[in-house]
Amino acid sequence: MTCDLLIENAAVLTVDPAWNLYEPGFLAVRGDSIAATGPMAERRAWEAGTTVDAAGMLLMPGFVNVHTHIPMAAFRGACEDLDDRLRKYIFPLEARLVDRDLVYRASRFCLVEMAASGTTCFADMYYFEDEVARAAREAGLRCVLGETVVDFPAPDCPEPYGGLEYGLRFISDWTGDPLVKACLAPHAPYTVDPEHLRAVRRESEARGLPVLMHIAETTPEHERYSVSHGSVLRYLDSEGALYPGLVGAHMIYLDPSDIELAAARGLSVAHCPASNAKGGRPICPASDLAAAGVSLGLATDGPLSGNGMDMQGILGLYPKLQKVRAGNRGAVPAREAVRAATLGGAEALGLGAVTGSLEPGKKADMILVDPDSFSMQPVYDWYSAAAYAMRPSDVAATYVGGRLVWDRTGMKGFDQAEAMADIRRIADRCRGTIAELTGGAP
Amino acid sequence: MTCDLLIENAAVLTVDPAWNLYEPGFLAVRGDSIAATGPMAERRAWEAGTTVDAAGMLLMPGFVNVHTHIPMAAFRGACEDLDDRLRKYIFPLEARLVDRDLVYRASRFCLVEMAASGTTCFADMYYFEDEVARAAREAGLRCVLGETVVDFPAPDCPEPYGGLEYGLRFISDWTGDPLVKACLAPHAPYTVDPEHLRAVRRESEARGLPVLMHIAETTPEHERYSVSHGSVLRYLDSEGALYPGLVGAHMIYLDPSDIELAAARGLSVAHCPASNAKGGRPICPASDLAAAGVSLGLATDGPLSGNGMDMQGILGLYPKLQKVRAGNRGAVPAREAVRAATLGGAEALGLGAVTGSLEPGKKADMILVDPDSFSMQPVYDWYSAAAYAMRPSDVAATYVGGRLVWDRTGMKGFDQAEAMADIRRIADRCRGTIAELTGGAP
Repeated sequence: MTCDLLIENAAVLTVDPAWNLYEPGFLAVRGDSIAATGPMAERRAWEAGTTVDAAGMLLMPGFVNVHTHIPMAAFRGACEDLDDRLRKYIFPLEARLVDRDLVYRASRFCLVEMAASGTTCFADMYYFEDEVARAAREAGLRCVLGETVVDFPAPDCPEPYGGLEYGLRFISDWTGDPLVKACLAPHAPYTVDPEHLRAVRRESEARGLPVLMHIAETTPEHERYSVSHGSVLRYLDSEGALYPGLVGAHMIYLDPSDIELAAARGLSVAHCPASNAKGGRPICPASDLAAAGVSLGLATDGPLSGNGMDMQGILGLYPKLQKVRAGNRGAVPAREAVRAATLGGAEALGLGAVTGSLEPGKKADMILVDPDSFSMQPVYDWYSAAAYAMRPSDVAATYVGGRLVWDRTGMKGFDQAEAMADIRRIADRCRGTIAELTGGAP
Repeated sequence: MTCDLLIENAAVLTVDPAWNLYEPGFLAVRGDSIAATGPMAERRAWEAGTTVDAAGMLLMPGFVNVHTHIPMAAFRGACEDLDDRLRKYIFPLEARLVDRDLVYRASRFCLVEMAASGTTCFADMYYFEDEVARAAREAGLRCVLGETVVDFPAPDCPEPYGGLEYGLRFISDWTGDPLVKACLAPHAPYTVDPEHLRAVRRESEARGLPVLMHIAETTPEHERYSVSHGSVLRYLDSEGALYPGLVGAHMIYLDPSDIELAAARGLSVAHCPASNAKGGRPICPASDLAAAGVSLGLATDGPLSGNGMDMQGILGLYPKLQKVRAGNRGAVPAREAVRAATLGGAEALGLGAVTGSLEPGKKADMILVDPDSFSMQPVYDWYSAAAYAMRPSDVAATYVGGRLVWDRTGMKGFDQAEAMADIRRIADRCRGTIAELTGGAP
């Protein structure tokens, strides 16, 4: 049999339902999809256009980062540690600085870090998502991009809720793209009224699209809806705003009946352990959500919240925080963490049949990891090594749909030096405004 | 004035009492010590043997990692996520596999990761600490090394408590070394009887040495001494085993009166957020300890616990977990985290006058960080960038006592490729025993 690309002699960690690990193994790509994977004994059946000898390397699914705001790379590290940061600093900062050009250039910059650390698929919520789409297409990453719908004037829409119309145009313009799935992203329960929540649901269900939304993230939100409806989730449910396809980011403030409700309504969760912890929030009951049958993906959140955009940091933090919450070393074993960072994320985005594991028929979204580093050796167990010891710098190559998008020589889709020069210029433009808003503090 | 080494044009983050940050600034080294540092305007007074132009770089104190077991790099990732791991797996593993050669070679291997990620000083507790000392001397890192005293036969001592004699010989052999401070490390309250705790105190106070010990780390320990004495700390105090110079690693199970007691007795704390979280332990009240006046340093713990030995991971985790504990985004601001990872650690080890900040008269223990990476840019605030965005791979050069010990071409003190080959050979030797102990699980 013939294929276009064949990777051989690697340890192939599939994250398939049987947890198959071929060591050594091979993987054959035909077009943009996985044609076969298995132990090296089965490799001889294949002839390939290009063969990559990955002896000593780990081949695994690329990471799926289910909640980001990548253009906010422009602001990374600004307004750090300040109280009521979102409303006092970030919203005003965005109102003054975010434009089409910043979104495109900061997105390209951010995509380098993501591709270089092994992310092959991500979900984003921001303004000018068509510019994020343009950057992602250049980079070659798979993505679900949600245009923000919100009740105040946004950088890309002078009228409140203008994002709905902007988003529908964006969706229409990008329909049929092989990598970019455009959709809507109502900002949060406290910034979108029930009428618009229902409109978003209607438009999205009609098109079979996911919906991205911050849910049960902030303390004032939690307090407000606890008083009025018992909880944020019960408020949303009372407005018909919980449904399959809705990806709730954060989902921190949940009681046991909220977890049941989330499962019953077919919700997905984008768990953001680093940004939640950095915000001083309680630990999300993530492993309880997963146990209840909710699709759980992991995420960095935006670069202003995380601050790193690598999934290695999240992969290490997710099990640690859940072990603290459970008071149990055995909570979320390493391989469950690896699954959440790959297939779990794909499932959360409704892409479980497309990506997230190395199985024939799926897209060839995968990374080669070079474990020959002083931080990753020795390797007794690939799951432990991937969850706890892998560093962003251990990633050697990132493929999306069988196409090499990054290797140690750099991005394949655009000039990454230009992206670095862009962000320095953007930062120089932002510096004064940030200093002004924070009263001189950084 | 003349000096041996002059670093110029860097952003110099001093961590001195005034939080001076010279941007751009210079630092002059004479012998092994800092002769001067300040803004570039003051640089012209100096003539140097060697000048390093560090334009665009960050110069900051090297990290101080106050609690490690570096020879355990041999076992990194083994017996992951298993219950009662220390007693069921780690002690038996050590009894069967740890020898003089493993300690020396695994230490050298581990020191590469540490030096390459910017650690200039560390404290270690293990067996055959004289071999750790030999490795550290080759690497050129500053260290406090505690030979383990424990009530069971150890890999380096067939008799219970043999470590006391072994340790005193080790101390005597290494007295006067410019980088290595040898000392004693009673393992834990539950593995060392009061008589030997007192002997350790007596011998250490007579020589003016610190003492390293695990304290209030495990749940059975906490339960046992809560019943008998109210708490682990109150038990130790009742035996005269709390005193200035004692560095308590972990210190998780503390009530408010334990925190007062720790401060009153002049204890230091080695806070290990990653290994504690990975063990499913409660969050150490670290910021409360610091607020009570206890010297607080940060640590990775051993590579079997962490699993990474870089301080960047700890620097990010420490504030995050304390913010979660406090329910407050403002808890442990970035610069406090940076201080804890540098000067705080030095103070905890009794080396506050020697290292941990860039001040004239102190040893030139420092790192150059290259922020020109897709994960660290843009930089609006050096403290935020250092605490939350710096990756191990952003470190460009590590100096101890003014001597370059590592740069991107590798270790200066030994052949790091040999250290990598060593660990692979050691892992091959360990693999069978690990599989046997864990019943085939990794």
